[in-house]
Amino acid sequence: MKKWPGIIEAYREFMPLKETTKPVTLQEGNTPLIYADRLSEKLGIQLYLKYDGANPTGSFKDRGMTLAVTKAIEDGSEAIMCASTGNTSAAAAAYGARSGLKTAVVIPEGKIALGKLAQALMHGAEVIPIKGNFDDALAIVKEITSKYPITLVNSLNPYRIEGQKSGAFEVCDQLGNAPDVLAIPVGNAGNITAYWKGFKEYYRAKKIESLPRMLGFEAEGSAAIAKNTVISEPETIATAIRIGNPASWDKAVKAAEESRGLIDYVTDNEIIETYREIASEVGIFAEPASAASVAGVKKMVARSVIKPGSQVVAVLTGHGLKDPTTAIDTIKKPEPVSAEVEAVLEKMGTW
Amino acid sequence: MKKWPGIIEAYREFMPLKETTKPVTLQEGNTPLIYADRLSEKLGIQLYLKYDGANPTGSFKDRGMTLAVTKAIEDGSEAIMCASTGNTSAAAAAYGARSGLKTAVVIPEGKIALGKLAQALMHGAEVIPIKGNFDDALAIVKEITSKYPITLVNSLNPYRIEGQKSGAFEVCDQLGNAPDVLAIPVGNAGNITAYWKGFKEYYRAKKIESLPRMLGFEAEGSAAIAKNTVISEPETIATAIRIGNPASWDKAVKAAEESRGLIDYVTDNEIIETYREIASEVGIFAEPASAASVAGVKKMVARSVIKPGSQVVAVLTGHGLKDPTTAIDTIKKPEPVSAEVEAVLEKMGTW
Repeated sequence: MKKWPGIIEAYREFMPLKETTKPVTLQEGNTPLIYADRLSEKLGIQLYLKYDGANPTGSFKDRGMTLAVTKAIEDGSEAIMCASTGNTSAAAAAYGARSGLKTAVVIPEGKIALGKLAQALMHGAEVIPIKGNFDDALAIVKEITSKYPITLVNSLNPYRIEGQKSGAFEVCDQLGNAPDVLAIPVGNAGNITAYWKGFKEYYRAKKIESLPRMLGFEAEGSAAIAKNTVISEPETIATAIRIGNPASWDKAVKAAEESRGLIDYVTDNEIIETYREIASEVGIFAEPASAASVAGVKKMVARSVIKPGSQVVAVLTGHGLKDPTTAIDTIKKPEPVSAEVEAVLEKMGTW
Repeated sequence: MKKWPGIIEAYREFMPLKETTKPVTLQEGNTPLIYADRLSEKLGIQLYLKYDGANPTGSFKDRGMTLAVTKAIEDGSEAIMCASTGNTSAAAAAYGARSGLKTAVVIPEGKIALGKLAQALMHGAEVIPIKGNFDDALAIVKEITSKYPITLVNSLNPYRIEGQKSGAFEVCDQLGNAPDVLAIPVGNAGNITAYWKGFKEYYRAKKIESLPRMLGFEAEGSAAIAKNTVISEPETIATAIRIGNPASWDKAVKAAEESRGLIDYVTDNEIIETYREIASEVGIFAEPASAASVAGVKKMVARSVIKPGSQVVAVLTGHGLKDPTTAIDTIKKPEPVSAEVEAVLEKMGTW
């Protein structure tokens, strides 16, 4: 076994870096691609799950952050900064800690859920709640990073997408080809943009002989792109994709068009049902937003948009441990039985 | 990049399996080995962290469970069963789901903490609380698995250690040699036993030219081996190693003796301090028990048991997201400031 060096070294020829720059890495990437045998049989397709919850901070954001922080250092930056309450702040803080750069995370004061911020705080980020909303937080971060030698690592940072495209490279390397279909959750729409960029670069480099159709799935309550309207108060249980005005909207539409794919949505009920199904039938516990890709695949198989026998890869973007509350709300508390073999056997039922 | 097939295929020649048996895998293993540059400098050694929290269910238990469940199927078993409230039940349920075998988890009714059991329940395990203590639960599980075609996957299952030894193989493959010192948390003492077995097998196969000294670290409040006494009510914040009568006690002592190592303990304060240090200075958020290995390294450097310049690998056994409560108790809730650039800059301090 050769040591996996992280996505920058593994795909250096595709990364916009000076030759001498040393990556800031937690050996992210190289995540499992798992054949979902029983789901495949049910759906009449070949379904693989790309499990990016196995990244160091538990989400796909590590792929973009390793490059964003490496570039920040290459460019002589002295700190990194973002406005985020979720997976982005966790990844920023982890790579900030790894690099030795200070990390500042600005958030609206109403959003101080310690569970969500635990990773950023544990990684030593300066978390700064402001008396304002998310737009205020982002405006402050933009102003500070434009005036000081501090790098903005929000999704506006273009290197995030350059790093995230490594997911597409890995899917192709793991399969030995590009899949027929790539299904992916859509929130800010950066990841679908990144995957499509990755597939196109691999195609131009003659590493693959075809391109997949890109199918992106939003949650119904925040389906800005699918419904073609900005949603001012997005609502969905899939918090990681609860975004009403995606930053990479146009690029996501372009990815769908160029690849003869589509952007559609799934309901919260479909997300939760699929979230449980992935955990209990494949053995992968992903965060609710991740289930949007597989729920979408089910919808598109039912509508014959995905043809029988197709090779489909669905991206699972984060680990289920990121959102224990939804898991606990979803499961039924088991009732105690007496401490006897017969009682336990009865509870077990058939097997 | 070649697809990582999971630890059984990667190290098949060292695994006790029929040639034709297909592994039940979630592509566990191949976890990061990260050079801790600033900690190394502070301590005057070369310190690497083996981060097993990046396994699919978030702990090293996946390494043993893939083999235990694969063997269960090879042997014609119809279900798997364990008594566990923690990482073992999560791994058992995930591999049970992957394989299609029913998983039953028996626990004392007082221990129904849904957060800890969320993974097992999400993976569809039958979780059965009994009106009794942990010994009752284990006795019932042993009796049922001795009478029915159901496999016990508690640490008594010998294949768990056979799978876990893959951690040692990976460390050697990643470094290109065996380290001078392997430091590891000790709870039930199965993992130190497994690593030592792995190093010896790699040495006999001439894959490495030397063997490391094995340094195992218990938590002070459950330091049965280090204090040479069974502890009836073990107490430590590091719940994953809160065990007063380790199953692999004798084997752990033997590993320490044969390798000219030792089993010692660290305090909860040392664990928490190191837990924070690993997150904020290396960028890895590991569960508290994991920090025992690095806390132990610091203690042994101070006592000159570890010599300056030594190459040391410390094993981090689980992901910090496994235990959000300890993280939240450890961090300070940040205070809001006004939504102005100056206020945010002041809060950021120097960088």
